[in-house]
Amino acid sequence: MEEPRLPEIADILAAARRLVGLAVTTPLLESPALNTRLGGRLLVKAECLQRTGSFKFRGAYNALAQLDAAARRGGAVAYSSGNHAQGVAAAAQLLAMQAVIVMPSDAPAIKVANTRSYGAEIVFYDRYREEREVIAERIAAERGAALIPPFDDARVIAGQGTVGIELAAQAHELGTRIDAVVVPCSGGGLVGGIAVALGERSPGTAVYAAEPDGFDDLRRSLAAGERVRNDPARRSICDALLAPTPGLLTFALARKHLAGSLVVTDSEVEHAMAVAFAEFKLVAEPGGAAALAAILAGRIDTRGRTTAVVLSGGNVDRDTFTAALTRGQA
Amino acid sequence: MEEPRLPEIADILAAARRLVGLAVTTPLLESPALNTRLGGRLLVKAECLQRTGSFKFRGAYNALAQLDAAARRGGAVAYSSGNHAQGVAAAAQLLAMQAVIVMPSDAPAIKVANTRSYGAEIVFYDRYREEREVIAERIAAERGAALIPPFDDARVIAGQGTVGIELAAQAHELGTRIDAVVVPCSGGGLVGGIAVALGERSPGTAVYAAEPDGFDDLRRSLAAGERVRNDPARRSICDALLAPTPGLLTFALARKHLAGSLVVTDSEVEHAMAVAFAEFKLVAEPGGAAALAAILAGRIDTRGRTTAVVLSGGNVDRDTFTAALTRGQA
Repeated sequence: MEEPRLPEIADILAAARRLVGLAVTTPLLESPALNTRLGGRLLVKAECLQRTGSFKFRGAYNALAQLDAAARRGGAVAYSSGNHAQGVAAAAQLLAMQAVIVMPSDAPAIKVANTRSYGAEIVFYDRYREEREVIAERIAAERGAALIPPFDDARVIAGQGTVGIELAAQAHELGTRIDAVVVPCSGGGLVGGIAVALGERSPGTAVYAAEPDGFDDLRRSLAAGERVRNDPARRSICDALLAPTPGLLTFALARKHLAGSLVVTDSEVEHAMAVAFAEFKLVAEPGGAAALAAILAGRIDTRGRTTAVVLSGGNVDRDTFTAALTRGQA
Repeated sequence: MEEPRLPEIADILAAARRLVGLAVTTPLLESPALNTRLGGRLLVKAECLQRTGSFKFRGAYNALAQLDAAARRGGAVAYSSGNHAQGVAAAAQLLAMQAVIVMPSDAPAIKVANTRSYGAEIVFYDRYREEREVIAERIAAERGAALIPPFDDARVIAGQGTVGIELAAQAHELGTRIDAVVVPCSGGGLVGGIAVALGERSPGTAVYAAEPDGFDDLRRSLAAGERVRNDPARRSICDALLAPTPGLLTFALARKHLAGSLVVTDSEVEHAMAVAFAEFKLVAEPGGAAALAAILAGRIDTRGRTTAVVLSGGNVDRDTFTAALTRGQA
């Protein structure tokens, strides 16, 4: 089988041009109090403020915007219970395309409502009896729709990589250089894209993934030298980080570029959500707080250095959020 | 008595230059779902993401940075139980100045701790038996410290006005012009500064204050043609918006520039906090959400127009925040 082409810096820069005026250039924030606690400088890239409440809009739009007029008429289809669904729906709406999102019938009402608010059609499936990929591929075939994968796609990865371009530029404006960056990781599209971007724009920066305990497929895959799967019986509050195994492209990027993957527990994530609330005034969803959690838990040394984390999303319901603030208090 | 000089656009532009690299250029965010609900475009200026968690850093730094070397050696003194305290403390720290903050002995522990984290000395007073202005003036006289008023000061107002410069530029980048802007109002420094800035940079924009029910001293002062005071028996959850009467400078600016003042109830504010959480992933303190509350309550017409609100601060404790999310659900 031919090796698919990995996204390169030129793809990411092209994505950044496509996203001008559409994606939010999310701020890079810091807290003097937290810097003191960590003994170094921590920069937080607030992607929860991105259009649709997560970074996923970047990759979805970059993929859809490259379709020609004929392909656009066929619409887009994606499977996702969460952030990728909203990203594809919002991107399709901007491009005046139909979007069909395949979601589990027990998806949270708020995520269904948000996805619908972008004009998408939703097709429900029974997550215990049906395969969402099969349903999405059938819809793609029937309607001539373009299937937009959640992470294992060079266009999607390049879109997510625009976070890295902004990170390097914003750190420069702040008069610093990022020694290490930690990025929440599910399928690996965001961390892979950022690694490619920083490899060019900030070559000295070590790039780490952050994964939930029990969903550390990337960490174990890197150790094994091949893609391994998570135990399907495991659970995590990080609903956005539950991909079963790395993608082909994303695993290749991770092997080439990553310094490692850091594993965090649910209670470390809840503490990070409480810190994001108190110190940064940001609403982080559990998966979005995984990288901050890794830093607060001391997984890498921050003393005397500049470390960045991506706070990748903020789509969390009220009860989950308030429970995290209570249990995880800063 | 000689009329004090009102801040002008040149003062605000000079403030903007002083704040480069120090103040956060806070993002201007929007929510397609909320736009649909309002029938127009709503832009939210996220000053809760500002250094110290509120816009107050801008004015405090602009005032302190204009002191000469001799004056800086005397340090700074301010009275505040909240956001201005943190703004002055953080600005003084950046300028290597001592800061003394006069705070009520029953101030929330979190605000005391935050103020201390910026290296400030705190002098407590009994709010039922002592006058904080008298204590601050005594400290200023004894130590040769510069007293930084919370709002009735041309340097402070000019600093807050930098929010208006950013607003006009960011709206232009988004390809729109702001028809109306609503700004939370306590003493009137923020809304006054923004009005001066937009008067030059976006002359067609109508500028409104938003005040809590029972603390609508600006609205009543504008109606009376003279400064009137609030009933000291009234209470509001908007702890940042409890100034008893407009300032001399700020009232003069309001008479000259404002389209009016909109009054909001506590429950309208709690709903706005819940909307900021759900739609913008932002933590708003009660007073910080007052302008958004006025829009959501329909105080001015948003249909077919572009309206902006300033979300002015996010320094809120967990219990107040979670109660607002519960009672005010979006």
